[in-house]
This record gives sequence, structure tokens and C-alpha cells, in this order.
Amino acid sequence: MQLGMIGLGRMGANLVRRLTRDGHRCVVYDVSDSAVKELEGEGALGAVSVADLVAKLDKPRAVWLMLPAGVVQSTLHELIALLDPDDVVIDGGNSYYRDDIARAKQLATRNIHYLDCGTSGGVWGLERGYCLMIGGAREPVQRLDPIFRSIAPGRGGAEPTPSRTRTDGTAPEGYLRCGPNGAGHFVKMVHNGVEYGMMAAIAEGLSIIRHANVGEADRTVDAETAPLRDPQAYQYDIDVAEVAEVWRRGSVVGSWLVDLVADALARSPELADFTGRVSDSGEGRWTVLAAVDEGVPAPVITAALIERFQSQGGGEFADKALSAMRSEFGGHAERKG
Amino acid sequence: MQLGMIGLGRMGANLVRRLTRDGHRCVVYDVSDSAVKELEGEGALGAVSVADLVAKLDKPRAVWLMLPAGVVQSTLHELIALLDPDDVVIDGGNSYYRDDIARAKQLATRNIHYLDCGTSGGVWGLERGYCLMIGGAREPVQRLDPIFRSIAPGRGGAEPTPSRTRTDGTAPEGYLRCGPNGAGHFVKMVHNGVEYGMMAAIAEGLSIIRHANVGEADRTVDAETAPLRDPQAYQYDIDVAEVAEVWRRGSVVGSWLVDLVADALARSPELADFTGRVSDSGEGRWTVLAAVDEGVPAPVITAALIERFQSQGGGEFADKALSAMRSEFGGHAERKG
Amino acid sequence: MQLGMIGLGRMGANLVRRLTRDGHRCVVYDVSDSAVKELEGEGALGAVSVADLVAKLDKPRAVWLMLPAGVVQSTLHELIALLDPDDVVIDGGNSYYRDDIARAKQLATRNIHYLDCGTSGGVWGLERGYCLMIGGAREPVQRLDPIFRSIAPGRGGAEPTPSRTRTDGTAPEGYLRCGPNGAGHFVKMVHNGVEYGMMAAIAEGLSIIRHANVGEADRTVDAETAPLRDPQAYQYDIDVAEVAEVWRRGSVVGSWLVDLVADALARSPELADFTGRVSDSGEGRWTVLAAVDEGVPAPVITAALIERFQSQGGGEFADKALSAMRSEFGGHAERKG
Amino acid sequence: MQLGMIGLGRMGANLVRRLTRDGHRCVVYDVSDSAVKELEGEGALGAVSVADLVAKLDKPRAVWLMLPAGVVQSTLHELIALLDPDDVVIDGGNSYYRDDIARAKQLATRNIHYLDCGTSGGVWGLERGYCLMIGGAREPVQRLDPIFRSIAPGRGGAEPTPSRTRTDGTAPEGYLRCGPNGAGHFVKMVHNGVEYGMMAAIAEGLSIIRHANVGEADRTVDAETAPLRDPQAYQYDIDVAEVAEVWRRGSVVGSWLVDLVADALARSPELADFTGRVSDSGEGRWTVLAAVDEGVPAPVITAALIERFQSQGGGEFADKALSAMRSEFGGHAERKG
Repeated sequence: MQLGMIGLGRMGANLVRRLTRDGHRCVVYDVSDSAVKELEGEGALGAVSVADLVAKLDKPRAVWLMLPAGVVQSTLHELIALLDPDDVVIDGGNSYYRDDIARAKQLATRNIHYLDCGTSGGVWGLERGYCLMIGGAREPVQRLDPIFRSIAPGRGGAEPTPSRTRTDGTAPEGYLRCGPNGAGHFVKMVHNGVEYGMMAAIAEGLSIIRHANVGEADRTVDAETAPLRDPQAYQYDIDVAEVAEVWRRGSVVGSWLVDLVADALARSPELADFTGRVSDSGEGRWTVLAAVDEGVPAPVITAALIERFQSQGGGEFADKALSAMRSEFGGHAERKG
Repeated sequence: MQLGMIGLGRMGANLVRRLTRDGHRCVVYDVSDSAVKELEGEGALGAVSVADLVAKLDKPRAVWLMLPAGVVQSTLHELIALLDPDDVVIDGGNSYYRDDIARAKQLATRNIHYLDCGTSGGVWGLERGYCLMIGGAREPVQRLDPIFRSIAPGRGGAEPTPSRTRTDGTAPEGYLRCGPNGAGHFVKMVHNGVEYGMMAAIAEGLSIIRHANVGEADRTVDAETAPLRDPQAYQYDIDVAEVAEVWRRGSVVGSWLVDLVADALARSPELADFTGRVSDSGEGRWTVLAAVDEGVPAPVITAALIERFQSQGGGEFADKALSAMRSEFGGHAERKG
Repeated sequence: MQLGMIGLGRMGANLVRRLTRDGHRCVVYDVSDSAVKELEGEGALGAVSVADLVAKLDKPRAVWLMLPAGVVQSTLHELIALLDPDDVVIDGGNSYYRDDIARAKQLATRNIHYLDCGTSGGVWGLERGYCLMIGGAREPVQRLDPIFRSIAPGRGGAEPTPSRTRTDGTAPEGYLRCGPNGAGHFVKMVHNGVEYGMMAAIAEGLSIIRHANVGEADRTVDAETAPLRDPQAYQYDIDVAEVAEVWRRGSVVGSWLVDLVADALARSPELADFTGRVSDSGEGRWTVLAAVDEGVPAPVITAALIERFQSQGGGEFADKALSAMRSEFGGHAERKG
Repeated sequence: MQLGMIGLGRMGANLVRRLTRDGHRCVVYDVSDSAVKELEGEGALGAVSVADLVAKLDKPRAVWLMLPAGVVQSTLHELIALLDPDDVVIDGGNSYYRDDIARAKQLATRNIHYLDCGTSGGVWGLERGYCLMIGGAREPVQRLDPIFRSIAPGRGGAEPTPSRTRTDGTAPEGYLRCGPNGAGHFVKMVHNGVEYGMMAAIAEGLSIIRHANVGEADRTVDAETAPLRDPQAYQYDIDVAEVAEVWRRGSVVGSWLVDLVADALARSPELADFTGRVSDSGEGRWTVLAAVDEGVPAPVITAALIERFQSQGGGEFADKALSAMRSEFGGHAERKG
């Protein structure tokens, strides 16, 4: 079928490629001319503006936005004015699900459908397919089924789940209508929160292995340094890169994230290209806020988020306050370095 | 080559099966006659006692222990008296790595080799192969290479790591000598700690999704119940089982653990067979102790361990103390149920 | 000076008592007649309605609300219609600071002043005085200075801070204008978050002491129960109530909260009156949300909040999911009780 | 009565001063001559060696060690050879309670009594008295009762606990026999763990208040920076030093630790003398290890310890691994500064 795509960054462009390969006709637009040109070369129909894109689509139209969260609202504003009743807009980016609820309401006043679609897959999605978590009314989701099916990995993406007896449903294809508007981005948001936790578990484990040699070092003996009681138990110089590699096969922690860290460690066992300032882009925060609102304990996901705040330097004032208190009550001077 | 196996539980028996399939000759012993009989029927040579097993092996012997941690020491005691210099003992169970250090020293006084071998793979290891993390001297590890190779998944267990340029090493086969004695079980211990963290991240995420409908409930309005400011943002009844299923394909959190939870949810979406008392069997605790000794922050793995303690009821007294303090300073009565 | 007080619960009534003792004239109203009567007997002037209270106050009026968060908005609505320009409303309860910002804006359109005043002190405040954290414009805060001064503990509430050289400011009196509207309740909110953390630290410590005898128990020996390696190191039956009592004097953890838990333990060393379901009333959640918004790591305050969610049973589904995963990969059955 | 004191650092010297003031006779020794001289000037009897100190004491002797943990063992070794049956040794420092158990056993073979005595009070103990947590047999603890009584703050150190009905016991005096050997240092260890948690709660709270102005800053708008949805809610420039000061009076978080941080902030509102590298000296680690051994959830105390590890830079490798994974799956480059 036909789809308009606005936003041709890595994700948007690769979605178009998967769709084109599967016989769908894509009309594409991006603020960058070259991005449009590149996809024209691969069979897409280019547009020179949002209005041009809308004009080139048959009614009822389907327009997918694959944009940074910060520009979704303004693009949507421009787009709505051009659309007709029964058209569908899909936000495939990382919008906050509460914005989806508001936007869907706004579009509904003009009888335009809105779908929020969390899209996971990263740089490898072109080849593996993307996992899609969709929110919105049933009818437009059903209407776009061929699109979702082409983007998703399909049943071959994993072995069948042995205990699964249901034969309906699209989840085994790698896409799912999770509920009404916002539900798609809600599930994607939590997905990213889970990702934070899994990443942190792996990173911490590798760090514990990396420091299994602390018993080899001479240790300062002063009242400010905790003694290591059994230095002979920490005499291991373990090749962390090889550990990540071996965990990729047959172990319980086997996962795509372990694959990725093994790749990074293969390039540089000391991860020399990185300083350790770990950004966060919102989804982890929102997941924690949801857990707090729900009263659901999520200590691991929360700890993973806080670990990132620490890495960003956000703990400096609190740490100074701790040193200040220690200095006050015990006359402890800070140990440098 | 030839191997003696003591302990024919699920793991031990399946190791023997993988070895037998690959042409190795196994001499097997277990306190259960029927376990021995069953493997005799699949081509292994049964023994009626530890002494009998030792007698049936050619020198230098290789004896693999696949036993609960609690009986390793006594079996080892019995075994050592029967072995000769240059024989090799492999502990394939979940011993604490500090015990390995002590045992290896003890055996070295009689010139017997000791290897600690962390073995991951669970119930699916027979088919997928087991990930092996080995500690001990180089020579005996090298000597047993054919055994490890048959047990491990082999290169086919995962796609090659793109950035890997090393062509030596056994990690891509799924087994690795991690260092001297104790290093194998150290890495396996941390592996299990990582597993705790990953499991908890997934479980918490699914729970947040499960409770995305808290806004639908009438909420008690009293000073003891935190208000929900935006109930309209929590009106989702999401099918958690289908979410787990869709995450299996193409998503960043794709992993064997997600496969497993999808299977459990396929059987019972409310996980009705479980009470939520989550056991821990030692490795998670030891991982946290190692992180503390090393001074390495491991908030996620630690939070996962603490979550299990909570589920086991270990927090009861502290919680009562909290309610008691609230009652004292604010006259807050506990809200029941 | 003169003050109207709406809401004569424990806190409101005691505020009136402190003010009356200091010579201020209070006009009081509550939905409960008996509450009004009781304070009339102690020198206050009773009112039969909000309108009556407003009528009995001289202009420019000052009206203090000491109400449950849930009824502030409706009372304020009724009140505004009756007030005149330059009157002042003080919200002394536990409102969310974001509501203060909105309310202050709304009142400003009618030239009515709004102050948010976080009030700490609990049941002992009548005697010790209340700590006041105030947000709002400078002029009305200044105008009400005699009121705040009478409610606060005064300089005698603590020894002077040795390094303090400032001679201005009201903080040493126990009250402080923290900033513009919302700042008072913001600081009070964080104060409560700190309280959560301190309470939890004390509760956990007492629990660790309470369980210092775990080595005395026979321990199940199975693969589902983590072994205790050094039972001889956990043979202490320590009198927790006496520990809390001794910590009250001279120790670094000395604090009002330790005083309170010592009192509760003096009544019942096993805290038998409590089930351990610890409520939370919003401020802790809001503190964590603020920390997340700010990107400030607050692992301790957050852990204290999550511990309460655990005690409320919010972790059940996640715990079941963990047990389910363990069952899937290792055939681990849950250990009951 | 008479007491020998070995170790005249700040704590040891002040213990001698409190004892001397109360009429006890102290024989004192330190490796520093000047420390001995100073106390001789205040009425103590100086010794030139451990042997000289032992010789100057009447039998049965009582010798108190107030030494860094690292030199206790060697001093004890020297001392034991000089003592006689029925003498008492008190370790008043911060030894690990497991060492106490071993040492007490060793001394018992020569019929010498050993007491472990956790001593809290810091730099202000001379004036306020010290909180003492004692482990050991009843008889020698009873024998030294006059010593403990003089060191402790006494009943005046706090108001009586209202619900306390017991009239026996020394806890209201500020000292307590907690149990057999090791129990004193066990309780002191947990006390320090609680202190970690309380300190961190305060530090985090002040940091959240310190950053209540994040909404004022221009915020980078890119996919690597989490958006702040409500910048208008974070426009507060709050005087943190004054907040700490006001919390000292009448608030629920009132505590000696708040007194201390208020003092530090009075000197420098930005805590400019500190870098934020927070040391830990062992007790916090041991507390966490005990909680893990006991299976008692202690998320707050543990988070406080981990926060210190973060401040010490221990998280660097894990953070690099996180950045590396983000780079692999999403092409996210680290944001600098």
C-alpha cells in the first residue's frame, strides 16, 4: 500500500527501505534534500515539502512521522491543516505517551486518526526488522496492517514460544496493538526502561570482573581507606572482552546487549573511546515516573537511571555535603585521588 | 577422550549425553542407581561407587563433579584418597570461588590438578550447549580441550562479533579459561549476578505495564494514601503476555530471559502458579560481596538481590519500625489492606 | 496580631494554641462544631462558617488554611469570593508546590496574596514549636512575621551553629522564607523525602541488629536456599529496644526519629501493633519526581520510597515474574514459607 | 578506679580527660611522647612503653586500646605477653566484630578478659559524652561499670523516653552491654551504617533543593539530553545554608547530622573546600555484608555505600560500558561536558 514518511534519518530511511523492498509505495520528505534524493534513488517518490507530500498521497492518506521528539509538535501542526477526515497520522518516534493522548484528542476533533507507534531496533533494524508497539483505535491499526507487517521482523525473528497456544494476534510477527492512544509509546517507554536495567546489569558485572585484581595493588593503610580483608581472593587479571564473547553462547545472560558490548570490547578492551558520561534521553525518566505514580517498586530500573545521573556529574553537591559532614563530626579530611 | 562424571542430575546427565554423542567415553556414578542405569542405556559405562568409577578410568584420569554445593567437599575428600598424581578433578557446579582456591591448594599437595568450571545453560543446555567459564592451570585445561569443546555450543551458537579481529582463543566456541583457580567460578558468579539484574529489569517493566490501569480504580482519599494526580494517564489494560511475546522479535531487550518470561505468561497471564517468593541460591549474594570488597558500585545487581530478600519477607521488622515511627510522630495509623 | 484559622485538626488547633498563648487573636472555623467550641474555651473567637470567619476579621485579613490536601482547592474557591484585595491566604498543609504556583497566580488576579507554608513538627509541635518553610512575595511574609515567630520554636530550639556569622535572617528562629510561591512547599516536600530516608536507615539498621541471630537457626540445605557460610558470626540475641535507647545519647545517629523509635520499642520490643504496611502520602513521591526532573541522583531517598511500595504489596507481579523465569530456566520450584 | 589507656589520639585523649575529671586514675601511653606529656599535665600518669604502662597498673588490670584498626593486632600481641589472668583488655576502636570473636577466644586461653566497645561521639564527645556499645562477658563489664558511666553522656543526655517502664539497665545512661564478644562492635558497625544512610538522605535532599533552579538554564535540545517538561516549576534559587539552619529547629529531620551540615554550609554555602570524593572506612561495607548474610533488605544503607563508591570513581568502567552499548545500538555519541 501507500505511505508518506516525514523524517528520513537513519530510522526513517530504513523503514522506507523495508517497505519499498516489500512492494509498498512510499512518498518521502525530509528537511534535507540529499536524504530525499537518496531514497528516490531506491524507488521512493520524493516530496519537496509537507504540503507536496500530502498532495502526492491518495485519500485516505497515511503519514508516518519519524522525527526527533522536539519537532513533532510543530510538524504535526503544519500537517493537520493539510489533511482530510479519515486520514491517519502515525508518530513512530519517542514521544511521551501523555502527549499522544492530547494529540489524538486534538486530531479527533477533525476526524483524523492518530496512532502512536514505539519502534525498537536501532541500527540493525533494516536487516532484522523493527519491533512495533502500537497505540490507537482498532480500525486504523487494522487498515495499516500491511505496513506494520513489512516493518516488523516476522515470525522467523525468533523460535516459537513453546507454551503459546493462541493462534490469533500479531505479537509473534513482532508488532502489537497495545491499546488505545498512548499505549504504544507507554510500552515502548517501559521497554527502554527495561533496557536501561539490562544494560546496567551487564556493565556492572563486567566492571566487577574487570576489578577482580584489586588485591594485587598496594593499598593505602589509613583511617580513610576501607581495608581489603582478603587480598588473596582478588588476584585475577581477567580478559573482560573474552568474557563478553563467551557469554554470547549458551549462557543465561545471552542477549543482543551482550552481543553489542562484546563488539565494543573487541574494538577496545579498555573502552578507550568513551569517558563514561552516559546520556539519558527521557524514556528512562518517564518509566520511573510511571512506576512512582503506580506505586510499583522498580528498584533496578530506577537504580539504572540514577547511575546515569551519577555519571553525568549530578551528584557533586550531595557528595560535597557528605564530605563536609564527615569533616565536621570526625575531622576526616578528604583523601585526594 | 575418557571422562568420569559424578553426579547425574539434570545438568550432569545432559553433559554426559553431549559428550557421548560426540564420541567421548563416559564413566558415570550417582547415589541414585536409576540415574546410572538410564545413562548406561545411552552408552555410558556405569560405576557402583566413587572407588569403582576411579578404578574404571585410565590414568591420568579426569573426573568431573556435578554436585550440589553442599556435598562437593565430602565427595572431594573421598575422591582425593583414590586419585593419583597428574589426575584432574573438575568442579562443574556452583561452588564459591574462594573454596576453589583452598581446594586447589589442597589437591596440589598431592600433585592432583583441580579445575573450577562454571557451567551455564539450564534446562536447554542439552540442545544449545553450555557456556563454560574455567579456572585453573593452563596444562590441564589444555588437556581437557576436547571435552570442553563438545560441551560448549560452538561457533554456530551466535553470529560472529563484527569487530572481533582475534583469531585465537576459545571464547567464540563458548568456553574460556578465565584465569587461575577460582577465576572460572568467579566469572560464573558474576554471570549469575548479571542474570539477577536482567531478570529484575524485565520483571519490573512488565509489572509497570501490568499496572498501567491504576487510574481506573477508585482511590481512597485519605491522608494515608498518596493521591494519583493524573488518573486519566493510567487507563490502559495491556496484555502483558503479548507484550513479552512482541519484545522477543527485533527489540533491544530481546534475550533468552524475555523468551522465558513470554513462555511463562503464555501459560498463565497472571502467573497464577507463583506466589512471588523468589529464592536466591548464593551467587547473587557473593557477587554483591565482591562488588563491595572491590569498591565497585553495582546498584542494579544489588537492588535485584535486595528485591529478592523483600520477596522472602526479610523486610518485615524494618517495615514495622517504619510504621511505628510514623505512628509516633504523626499519629498515622497503618492503613489495612 | 489577628489571624483566621480554617481547619482545627491536631495541627491547626495547636497552631491556634501557640498563637493565643503569645497574645495573638485567632478567629477559628472547622466543619466540626466541637473543635470550634474547644478552642473558644481556650480564648479563640469561633466562627460558624467560612463567611462568618471572614466577616469577623479586620482588613487586610490573614487566613491560614490547615486542611487535608484534598479539600484545599474547594475551600480556597469558597474563600476567594469573600476576600478583598490585599488580604493574605496561607496554605499551611501539605499541598503540592505546583498547585501553589497555579493558585498564587489565580489569587493575584484579584490582588489577594497567597503564601505556601510547609509546617513540620508533628504531635509534639505544640510544645517544641513548628519548623516553617515559607514561599511567597516578600511583603506579605514580612507582614505576618509576628505570626510565624510565635509558631516557630525560636532560637532556644537548638544551640547556635558555631560557624554562623550572619546575623540577619529568621532561620535561627525556626522559620524561613525560602523563595517565591511554591518554594515553601518545595522545601517541605524535600524535607519529607529526607525524613523517608532517615527513617529507613534507622529501620534497616535495627532490623540488621534484630536478625544478628540468624546463625542460631537450623538452615534448610537445598539448592533454593543461600547457604550461610559463617553461622558462628551470627549468634547474637540483641535487645533492639535497648540499642535504640542507648543511641539516643551521645551517638552520631542521635535524632528525634531515634527518640521516636525508642519510644515505640519501649512499648513493644517486637512492634506487635504493626503489620509493616507503610503508607506514603505523596511528598516522598514528589521528591523523587523532582530529583528525576533535575537529573540529581537521590538513590537513598528513592530506595526509601520504593521500600514503602514493597511493604504495600506493589511488587507482587514482578516477584511472580521472577519466580516464573527461575522456574523456566532452571526448573526451580518456589520454596514455600 | 584505675585504667590504662593506650593510644592518645583525639578520642583516646578525650576519654582520659572525661575519666580524670570524674576522679579516675589513668595511666597513659602513646607512641608520641608529646601526647603523653600533654595528658600528664592534666593529671594522668604517663608511661614510656606498653610494658611500663602494664607495670604501673594494679592487678587485676584494665587496659583500654584506642588505636587505628590496623595496629590493634600487633599491640594486643605485645600486651598479652605482659598481662596476668583476670586482667581486662578493652578495644574501644573500630575493629571488625569478627576479629573480636577470634581475639577474645585467644585471650581466654590465658584467662584474660576481652571487651569490645564501640565508641561514638566524634569531636564533640569530650563535652557531650560518648555512646558506648559493649560486647563481652558480664563480669568484666560489670567490673568496669564506673569507667563506662563516666565516659557516657548520662541520663541528662536526652529527655526520658516517655513509654519506657523498665527501671533497670544502663541504656538511659548512654552505655549498653549488647551481648557476648563482638556484639559491641556489631552494634557500632550497624550504627555507622545507619549514619551513612542518614547522611546521604540529608545530602541528597539539600542537593535537590540546590538544583531547584534547573528550569532557568537554557537546555540543549538534542536526542542525547532528556527534555525538562516543566521548566517553570524549577525556577527557585533557594539558600541551602538557611534551609539547613531552619531544619535544625522543630522539624522531624532535626538531628546532630543536620546541625553539622548547617555548620559546614555556614562556612561555605557552596562547600568549596570539598571535591566530593567521599571516603569510607569499612563499617558501612561490613554492615552491608551483614545484611546480605542475614538476607535482610537494607536498600537505603546499601545505596548510601554505593553512592560513596560512585564518588570515589569506582563506576568508571561500568559507565564506559554503558556508553559503549549506547553507541553500538543507537549510534549515540557521548555528549561531552
